[in-house]
Amino acid sequence: MPSDSAEYTRKKAFFERTLTIYGRKPALEALRDSKLQCQTLHLAESNRSGGIIAELTRAANERGIPVQFHNRQALSRISRNGKQDQGVALDILCPAFRSLQTYLEELPTLRQQRILALDGISNPQNLGMLLRSATAGNIDAVLWSRKGNAALGPLVTKASAGTLYRAPLVTCDSLAAALQQLRQSGVDICSLRADASQSLFDHQPQSHVAYVLGNETDGVSSEVNALATTGLCIPMNNAVESLNVAVTASLIAFAQHFQAGR
Amino acid sequence: MPSDSAEYTRKKAFFERTLTIYGRKPALEALRDSKLQCQTLHLAESNRSGGIIAELTRAANERGIPVQFHNRQALSRISRNGKQDQGVALDILCPAFRSLQTYLEELPTLRQQRILALDGISNPQNLGMLLRSATAGNIDAVLWSRKGNAALGPLVTKASAGTLYRAPLVTCDSLAAALQQLRQSGVDICSLRADASQSLFDHQPQSHVAYVLGNETDGVSSEVNALATTGLCIPMNNAVESLNVAVTASLIAFAQHFQAGR
Repeated sequence: MPSDSAEYTRKKAFFERTLTIYGRKPALEALRDSKLQCQTLHLAESNRSGGIIAELTRAANERGIPVQFHNRQALSRISRNGKQDQGVALDILCPAFRSLQTYLEELPTLRQQRILALDGISNPQNLGMLLRSATAGNIDAVLWSRKGNAALGPLVTKASAGTLYRAPLVTCDSLAAALQQLRQSGVDICSLRADASQSLFDHQPQSHVAYVLGNETDGVSSEVNALATTGLCIPMNNAVESLNVAVTASLIAFAQHFQAGR
Repeated sequence: MPSDSAEYTRKKAFFERTLTIYGRKPALEALRDSKLQCQTLHLAESNRSGGIIAELTRAANERGIPVQFHNRQALSRISRNGKQDQGVALDILCPAFRSLQTYLEELPTLRQQRILALDGISNPQNLGMLLRSATAGNIDAVLWSRKGNAALGPLVTKASAGTLYRAPLVTCDSLAAALQQLRQSGVDICSLRADASQSLFDHQPQSHVAYVLGNETDGVSSEVNALATTGLCIPMNNAVESLNVAVTASLIAFAQHFQAGR
């Protein structure tokens, strides 16, 4: 029935834009940040009332945010981190988050896209810093796979200086499968690698482009390199072998600014 | 006497290019890195022989590096960190280090210089990352004051991915006094600050230029801002207020690459 289908689409859009954070202090900070669209506060029934739990409930009530109580096991499922959630989880609406499926559907209508694709960014500080620069610079989508990259936990939020909630994040399960789909949709796949002969600074993309950033130690995986249409390097002085991955991401994010400024 | 003066100049050049690192593992790693010019291994007489101390001595002997023994107090003076030196210090020659005095003397003979000046970079990881990007990119000097910035300890070395030893570091005591001297020598002082109206990306320096990067929380200090000839901002999307300071440094370090690539 059409109404069921509309309801499904609405729910899907809601879920793919919802980030669930956990922990007492992070949840309280988020509830007190009026710029954030907090959806639902989830509490374990086993939490002792009073103290910070009372503060959390008060902060939610003041903003008219619903509070739901769950048994410990159900809360673990919501937070996805029962060991560190401290009996508290909070759903936050992130307007620029979307699933790969949604992004692929939108792609034909979008102007030339600049995508950062993350192939094993394991350090949460690097991931947070990268999201901060991508959100500030000219990046239309950060393709983040659940598998292989650091989880979107408190360390990432902190290193992102809170910009994670505004980041243009496209979520998928496996990066290689996602890049295959993007390639079929006309996206050039550029792999950042030290042994490439073409410089990032000379590269002028003619279509949608995804820049793949690899793991801090091992670089881009061979599986993903096999999918790449182009390899790009960053020329370096003084025999420096590589840059921090968040720095590389930032150079890509701000490349157009420099070029426009000439 | 001329020979005394020549001796003094030689010693001065040696000392300003020597970085003394400390700690057993960091010293052993450095001794085993054939690319590093290790000068002298300093050991506390109180160290028990055997174990890693024997390994250190063996590694130094194999490379013909002199080993000196000191009482605990003297070793603390050499390492400048008696609490964490573990009775081990190592002098490393860093060919691109120099004092502000030496740099000011060389300045009239140098091509247009691009300097990064550090006004309170307190996080060792940021400092290390910044040095890595500066060494890899187009930066002629990183002006680092002993006062106000993180010390050049093991966390900085690690975050620099070992590039600290090759960094073009200019050392001084106080940044404000150093910038005053640079300004008198014809260096433009550009302060990176969010409230500036001119964009970094539109700025084309006509002479030597020092870009001042401020503290992670407080930005450039008012004392240093008062010395600046120009304020520069980085335009950002999505209401992001600032970038990580090492990212800002990296954009400056690679600006010319982008511009040349067009």
